[in-house]
Formats: sequence, C-alpha cells, structure tokens
Amino acid sequence: MAIELGPNQFGKAEIRLVHVDRTGPVHHLIDLNVSTALRGDFAAAHLTGDNSHVLTTDAQKNTVYAFAREHGIGQIEDFAIRLGRHFVDSFSWIDGAQIEIEQYHWNRISVDGAPHNHAFSRASGERRNTVVTMDSDAAFVVSGLAGLVVLKSTGSEFWGFPRDRYTTLAETTDRILATEVTARWRYIGTGHDFGPLFDGVRKSLISTFAGVHSLALQQTLYRMGEAALTAHPQVAEVRMSMPNKHHFLVDLEPFGLDNPDVVYQAPDRPYGRIEATVLRDDAPAPGPSWQAVPGFC
Amino acid sequence: MAIELGPNQFGKAEIRLVHVDRTGPVHHLIDLNVSTALRGDFAAAHLTGDNSHVLTTDAQKNTVYAFAREHGIGQIEDFAIRLGRHFVDSFSWIDGAQIEIEQYHWNRISVDGAPHNHAFSRASGERRNTVVTMDSDAAFVVSGLAGLVVLKSTGSEFWGFPRDRYTTLAETTDRILATEVTARWRYIGTGHDFGPLFDGVRKSLISTFAGVHSLALQQTLYRMGEAALTAHPQVAEVRMSMPNKHHFLVDLEPFGLDNPDVVYQAPDRPYGRIEATVLRDDAPAPGPSWQAVPGFC
Amino acid sequence: MAIELGPNQFGKAEIRLVHVDRTGPVHHLIDLNVSTALRGDFAAAHLTGDNSHVLTTDAQKNTVYAFAREHGIGQIEDFAIRLGRHFVDSFSWIDGAQIEIEQYHWNRISVDGAPHNHAFSRASGERRNTVVTMDSDAAFVVSGLAGLVVLKSTGSEFWGFPRDRYTTLAETTDRILATEVTARWRYIGTGHDFGPLFDGVRKSLISTFAGVHSLALQQTLYRMGEAALTAHPQVAEVRMSMPNKHHFLVDLEPFGLDNPDVVYQAPDRPYGRIEATVLRDDAPAPGPSWQAVPGFC
Amino acid sequence: MAIELGPNQFGKAEIRLVHVDRTGPVHHLIDLNVSTALRGDFAAAHLTGDNSHVLTTDAQKNTVYAFAREHGIGQIEDFAIRLGRHFVDSFSWIDGAQIEIEQYHWNRISVDGAPHNHAFSRASGERRNTVVTMDSDAAFVVSGLAGLVVLKSTGSEFWGFPRDRYTTLAETTDRILATEVTARWRYIGTGHDFGPLFDGVRKSLISTFAGVHSLALQQTLYRMGEAALTAHPQVAEVRMSMPNKHHFLVDLEPFGLDNPDVVYQAPDRPYGRIEATVLRDDAPAPGPSWQAVPGFC
Repeated sequence: MAIELGPNQFGKAEIRLVHVDRTGPVHHLIDLNVSTALRGDFAAAHLTGDNSHVLTTDAQKNTVYAFAREHGIGQIEDFAIRLGRHFVDSFSWIDGAQIEIEQYHWNRISVDGAPHNHAFSRASGERRNTVVTMDSDAAFVVSGLAGLVVLKSTGSEFWGFPRDRYTTLAETTDRILATEVTARWRYIGTGHDFGPLFDGVRKSLISTFAGVHSLALQQTLYRMGEAALTAHPQVAEVRMSMPNKHHFLVDLEPFGLDNPDVVYQAPDRPYGRIEATVLRDDAPAPGPSWQAVPGFC
Repeated sequence: MAIELGPNQFGKAEIRLVHVDRTGPVHHLIDLNVSTALRGDFAAAHLTGDNSHVLTTDAQKNTVYAFAREHGIGQIEDFAIRLGRHFVDSFSWIDGAQIEIEQYHWNRISVDGAPHNHAFSRASGERRNTVVTMDSDAAFVVSGLAGLVVLKSTGSEFWGFPRDRYTTLAETTDRILATEVTARWRYIGTGHDFGPLFDGVRKSLISTFAGVHSLALQQTLYRMGEAALTAHPQVAEVRMSMPNKHHFLVDLEPFGLDNPDVVYQAPDRPYGRIEATVLRDDAPAPGPSWQAVPGFC
Repeated sequence: MAIELGPNQFGKAEIRLVHVDRTGPVHHLIDLNVSTALRGDFAAAHLTGDNSHVLTTDAQKNTVYAFAREHGIGQIEDFAIRLGRHFVDSFSWIDGAQIEIEQYHWNRISVDGAPHNHAFSRASGERRNTVVTMDSDAAFVVSGLAGLVVLKSTGSEFWGFPRDRYTTLAETTDRILATEVTARWRYIGTGHDFGPLFDGVRKSLISTFAGVHSLALQQTLYRMGEAALTAHPQVAEVRMSMPNKHHFLVDLEPFGLDNPDVVYQAPDRPYGRIEATVLRDDAPAPGPSWQAVPGFC
Repeated sequence: MAIELGPNQFGKAEIRLVHVDRTGPVHHLIDLNVSTALRGDFAAAHLTGDNSHVLTTDAQKNTVYAFAREHGIGQIEDFAIRLGRHFVDSFSWIDGAQIEIEQYHWNRISVDGAPHNHAFSRASGERRNTVVTMDSDAAFVVSGLAGLVVLKSTGSEFWGFPRDRYTTLAETTDRILATEVTARWRYIGTGHDFGPLFDGVRKSLISTFAGVHSLALQQTLYRMGEAALTAHPQVAEVRMSMPNKHHFLVDLEPFGLDNPDVVYQAPDRPYGRIEATVLRDDAPAPGPSWQAVPGFC
C-alpha cells in the first residue's frame, strides 16, 4: 500500500474585474468575477514543497487584468478561452486549465426617458456565467445562468403521487410554483456567437417556464431544457437545478376567514430540489467539461 | 442605587407574506417581509415573568396574515398604519407599536413581447421599505429604499482634500463613483398617496445621482436629498447612507501596459461610508419617528 | 422654507486588520474589523463639493494600520479611544469621531495536548465589539458582544399571556429556549481594565441565561442585564436584542408516533424579537454614546 | 436526433432537525441539516407530468423527522444510511438515494466551572458532514468537515516558483498561512465507529496543519491528507479544497514606520484556491460516491 496524489488543481478565485469601454461618449461596462485553475504536473509542490512548476496565483490574477487591457473582453466565453489557452501554452507542464467567469448585469439609468451615457444601476441578482475547460489544445465550454427567481401564481398542479406511511401532503390543482433557476448548458464546439446564443437559451428557459401548464416541477424543468435544445443546435445538453420554493396557503379558519389562494407564507427551508439533465441523444462526449463544476446529478 | 427596566419592545420579525390578487385574469403579486414590535407596559414580564400583558408574537404574526386577507394590503405604508393602529387599540397597556415592512419587486415575464398574466421574475436586489411608528393615536411614517446599487463611469472628481501625515491618496479628476444607496425619508403626516410618492422620491434620488457632476460623494448625497425634498413637499427630511464602493485602477505598468481608466479591481472591504441628513428648516419635529430605526447619524 | 444639511459623518468602514505579536516564541494574534467616522464641519463638501475639510477615508485607514504598529493594540476599547482622540486632535474642524471595532476570537490549536505557539483555529461566530464616541475631549465607551447563540433544552415555560381573536398559541410549561444574544453595555468613564471587564460581563450574561428558570424571554433578558449591572459597577446600562429562535415540536401523530419533547424543527423566519434596556437609576447621562449605534429600542 | 432525459434526482433540501435526548438529567443535543435525493425511474414525471412514481419531497421530510423519533440518530453516517436504505426499499422504481447531513456543534455552558446539564452555546462555524449514496443495496459513505478556519503566524515559506511576464510576486521565507479547510474523505465500507473515526481524521488534519513547516500550501494539504490516510486504514481517499486566505503586510514606509511581520491587512477576494485528492493506491473504486457531491477536482 502506498499513498499518492490524485487529481489536483490550483488557481486564483474571485478576481473582481470591472472593464469600462470609454472609446465613445456612450460608455460600456463589463463587470466580472473571474476564477482560474491550472492542471498539470504539480506533484513536486505537493510531495516536497518544490514550487518550480507553480505559476503563482498572483501571476494568474495579473494575467486576467492584463488580458482585459491588452485584448479586451468581449463575450465571457471568448475571454475565458483566451485565458485558458494562454495558461496551457505558458509552460510545458501545464496541460489543462479551468476558467470560470460570472457576469453581473447593469442597466443604464434613465433620465427624462433617455438612457444615460455613463450612469448605471445594478440589475437583478441573476448572473450569466461560463466554465471553460482546456485539455491541452481542446476547449470545452459550459455556460449558464444562476439566480433567476421566477414564480407563477397559477397554472401549476401537483397530484397523482404515490402515498406511503409518511405521505400526508394533499393533492392540488392550483398552487404557486416558484423556483430559482440554476442552469448550465454545454456547447458543441467553441466558435459561436456567444452573446446572442446566451440570450436565446435564456429566453427559451424563461418563456417555457411561463408558458407551460405545470403538472410537476420535473415536467417544467424538462420542457425548459427541451425548448433550449430544440431552438439551439449548438447546445449538447442542459443541466438544471431548480428548488421548489414553497409558498404555503395560510390557514385563516381560526380567525373566521377563508383563504381562496390569496395569502401565502414563504418559508426559507426546507425546500424541494429538482435536478436533471436534458440532452441530445447524438451529443458528442463531454470530455472533461463537467469536471470540478459544481454540478447537479 | 437600583437597577431598573428602560425602553423595551417585542414583536415578530421577518414575517414573509405573499399576497396574490386573483380577482381578474391578470394577477397582481405583493411580496413582503413584515416585522412588528409593541411598546407599552410590559414591566411585569421582565421583572417577574408575568405574561398577562404579553400579546404573543405568534398572535402578532397571525394578525399580519389575517389583515392581509381581511383588508388587503395596498401600499405598504397604509398596511403598516392599519396594523399599528390595531395593536395600539387592542389592549389598554399597549400604547405604541413599530411596524417595519420591506417589499420585494417582481417583473412580469415577457412572452413574445407581451407581459404574462401570472408569471413573474424577481427584479433587482433593491427593496422599498417603510417604518411606521405608532405613539398612542399618532402615526409617524418613515419610508425608504435599500439595495440600490449605482455606478458612474465618469463625471466624478476628488481633489482639494487636506493632507496629514497619513494621507497618501492621489487627487483625481476622473474616477468611477459607485455606491449602494440606503435612504429613508420622513413624511409630514400620513394621508398621502404613497405609491406615486415613493416613485417620485426614488426618481429624484437616482436621476440626481446620474446627473450631478460629482466633486465629492458628500456633494452627490446632499444634492440627491435636496432634489427629493424640493420636488416633494410631503417629505420633511431624508437620511442617507452611501458607501463609497471603491474601484481602483489596476497598475499594469509592470506588464508594459497603460491603463487609461479602463481596467479596475473592485475590492469588497474596506469601503468609504458617507452618511448625512438633508432636511427642511421648517420640518415638524420627528417625535419617535427614528426610534429603534437602524439609523445613520 | 429652506433645505439644509443635518447631522452627518463619514469614514472608512470594515478595515480588516490582523496584528501579530512575535516578540517571543509564543505568538499572540489580534484580528479586528475597524470602522471610523468623523464628525464636525463638513458642510462645504456637501454644499459645494469643497473637500478642504475632508480628511480622506483612505488616510483614516492608513492611520488605523499605522497606529497598530506605532502604539500596538491592547484592548479594543483603548485602541479605539487612541484613534478617536487622534482624529479629533488632527484638525480644528473635526470635533467628534466614532470608532467601531469588532474582534474575532482565535483558539490555539492543540497538538498532543499542548497549545501550539503559532498555530490557531477560528473560534465561534461570537464577536466582541466596542463603539467609542468622541465628543471633543470626552470619550464615551459602549462595548458589547454579538453572535452568541445559546439554547436551553428545558427550564423554560411560557403561559399566562392574554388571548385576542388572533391568539392560537398553546401554553407550555416546557419548551426549548434559544436565542442569539446581541448585547451592548455603556461604561461609566474610560479608565477601565477592559479585558477582564468584558470577560466578567459576558460571564454574567451567559451564566444567567443558563441558570435562570425562564417564564418569558423578557424575564431571562432582564435578569441577564441585572446580573451584569450588579456585578460590575463600571457599567451604566445594558441594551440587549434577543431573537426568540423558535424550535417547534414536530407533529408525528400522523405516523403513529408520539413526540415527548424530542424531535424539533427549527425554522429560520419569522422569529420573535425581544429588546430591552436594563440600567442603573443613578447612571450618568449617555451623551452621544448611542448616536448612530445600530440600536435596539 | 432526439432529445432525452439524462441523470436526474429530486428530494427535500435543508431539513433543519434538532433532537434532544432527555432520558436523563444531562440532556444531549443533536442539531442537523438534512437533505435527501432520490434516484430511479422518474421519466414519466419529466416527460408527461405523471407523478405516480414521485414520492413527494414532503414525505421525504416527514420520514426524516419520524426516523429521528423512531430509531434515534446516533452518528450522522448511520442515520443517513438508515434513511437511504429506507427510501431504496420503499418503492420498486427507486433504486438510489443520496442523503447529505451537516451537523452543528454545541458546547455545554460552564457555570461556576461545571458543565450545565441542559444549557448550550453554539460552537465554531465548523461543521461535520456526510454524504451517503445508496446504489440499490450498496451504501457509499463520504464524510467531511467544512468551515475549519486555521492560521499559522509563522512557519510558512513560499519561493522557487517560475516567473513569467505576469509574475511580480516577491519570494518570502516567512508569511502568514491561513485557510478554511473543506475536506471530504471516502470510507472503505460502512460498518465503522464513525464518531471516533471523525475525531481521528479531524485531528490528523489539524495537527498536521499546525506541525508541518510549510513550503507551499499544496505541500501542507498533501501532508494533511497523507496523515489522515496513514492513521486511518478505513479511509480510501481524502479530497480537500483550501483557499489561501491572503494576509498582506501593510506598507508603512510612507508613514516612517517599519513593519517586521506585525501588521497585516486581510482582503476578502481574490484568494488562492488549492484543491487536491490524496488516496491509497489500492483503494477500492469509488462507484457513485462522488456523484453530485459539490466536488473539488
């Protein structure tokens, strides 16, 4: 028996980078949270503390800032690919990298009905993100969104479930359905126009949530993924995690009041958690796409 | 020398209440976080554990839910006044109450360009709030907003400050100005149309932030408050707390790059904190308006 | 009618400072979160953007770090007084300051039963804190603790409360009592040995929580404050905020099981909130001690 | 081309369960956060909204509470195995489950030097946890800890790293090393005495952190894992994620002061992130042990 080093990686996490395009009077703002991780031959650092292969996390951070200036940013997927390729090309012993980027949205402040040139307000808590994994020369792109909180005040049923000794839940043909969508989708290839693609997938997800008459959150989730895949041949699979953020009708009978689906309490915990993958049957193999990605199932 | 009981209050905090108006095909959603506190003669509970005056916090919670059904909600200020008045009227020994309500915003999901009847997505992290303080029959209303994150990518200078032994900061005539606005304003009287008033004050604050060429965050804050007061005679004073969310230019010289106000790092802490009150010189006395309100200065 | 500037202050918030005493082989660690605020004549900055009185928040931060090196830290109250006095003495137009310090606790890691010289682990989420307010030459000291979560699994009753239309709560002679203590106490004068005093007040609070048979959380709170005041003549008053962190017995009858105070669910929200001041009747006036302190009632 | 359902699971997340053993005068407290997830044939729910296979998340929650009463809890690993086995045995179409449990620690309050029978205070932010994965009859146990924040004020060097265009970091032979340990280890088999085993692994990790003179955080991490594996033949592998929580010396030269490793600032972000697996070369295959576990690398 011997003890050995298994898979490992290291990098700089949560580099907060704000980029302002001031080339014209109308400024453009890009607000990112970038994390890097390098893979390769780092055994000596682990086994003996020999750092001759350890490209410092400080240098990784510097690279992120310098690349933002030297090459601009553009779409987060392209920025991540550029960074990942650089790290893999930088030293012979670095043969992989994973770059994760989270993007915060800002709206222009409207003054007298006109969008302001250089004043912004932070949009919702929703974030666009990407995880680009480099494996030697190959790049794998998984993009996604998080923090999209949605609710339907009707158009959701839940019944027909099996009953065991511990089942007390009543069936319902009309309930509030609320969730916070976390979705990640894997692209086929890398040469895409990632901005419009993100907008398209997001639109598929959210409009399907709104439009589908729901019999189960599982069904809603599946239909959301299916819509995204149907409309976007560039997408191989979608993985989603959707908590069932319960809204319980308050029992007002003790106070002599009815409650015909009007007054709800919204507890924080516990919550249901529904997770699934929807994919093309002819999707290419994921390779290392999902390795170390905070994943679902 | 003796030890005695000083000011005290008790209530139920963070009652999460969602109200759905389903009277027509177009549903309306109100999403609140309500906290109650009662004031009066509760000495016996403290001194001997005699609870005969203690209207339970559970009953306070029930009251909030029941009132939402019985009387509807409307504007949060009106709902808070209704609740506060009820508590003060309920038992002779309750002579004051403070009701705090925070409101979360939801947008309608747009499907094929049309707003959906009953599907919503959570808007930004900004919350509208109110603190209504009842003192016997008198009601005092302080409303506000929190979580409004705004940023200007130019139009902000900072120079002319004194220099002591510990001053190393360089002067600048062009910097990013970013803050998260927390504002509370005190209304004169209670019989207002609180919805449009909130929208008006908010618009004064945010459009002034965008429009003022800033020489100091203090100046921006003051002008925001001044604009709100000028446009709204119903408002006696505005108290604001505005962190200076620093954005520091990254030094790219070691990498042979310039950085003409393009690439910034955004640290979490520390941050500047600017707090001030702007008020009418003829404003009525606040009474207990600000008592126990997480306040500024 | 005119609009004018009211109370205001500005400073640097949440300066994270770690100080290591390496003068011997046994290192000592002090881990602080320091916030400063200056008061005085800052009208010009607000009204016209004239910063000639604005000692920059950056300089305030530098001062904190430099003082830690030049004078050491010692007890947080003494460090805060030293900083406050410096700011008030630095420029003629600065006539007040408020220094808030939060201290994180670390334990020595034990190796083979012996405490390590220079290896530490972070203790509980409890923090010791102080708010020192300077008003010209006078210093006012309010110290406290936060994040002290305590629970009694028996020895707590709650009954005898009044019942109105909205009261449905059952009386109980045995319940779990849990809370997260936030306490702030005002010292009489400033020349105290603040370390042992803090330990003493904390011990009064926590051992009273444990020892008192509780008939109401109000009673427990009052007795805790009374114990602190009785044992420590240096303390003028104690203000406490104690949420009632509910633990509800789970109804297991549908599953054919009893539940004799064994299995509880612990919801996050809502929670009761009990707040009170306990004070000496001959306490000196607080002056500006509590101004801008996130306060209770 | 067709679109299909991939891996999926659903359950109830974050069931907050507190269990009090009141069988003697000395009470014992177990405070848990339990999450369940079921795997099997749930295609119909996704594809058509047919819930006939969906054991409700509400029933899963009820099961957790009922089992706590019926069978007690004991070690979290045993409680999780018991729950997982029940779910897999409950319906023919459920062939897998994943039970995750997080445990919060409480200390007895000491009164006059004696530990109290039924009064407790919440210990540090550290949590013990387990993830038990059922695959038909087989159980796989991964246990761990999170939130263990540790710091060494000396005994840490970092030098000998490669330098590229973006490397500006200075080498050091004495720095603060601080991290928040997240560790998960996989047990070989299930019939262990999990309480003492947890204590043993934890002790291996923390005492190695303290004892090893560090040349790299990678080396410290590896040695911690190696120590745990060497001392505990029941453990197949350890996966760790350890942020490098930077402490930077403050430059006090502008103020005429030196800073011989005394005064540090501690930024929140970015931070280094070091992740690795340490394992036995003869460890049995993990099977589904790590599936859906928020994992490292």
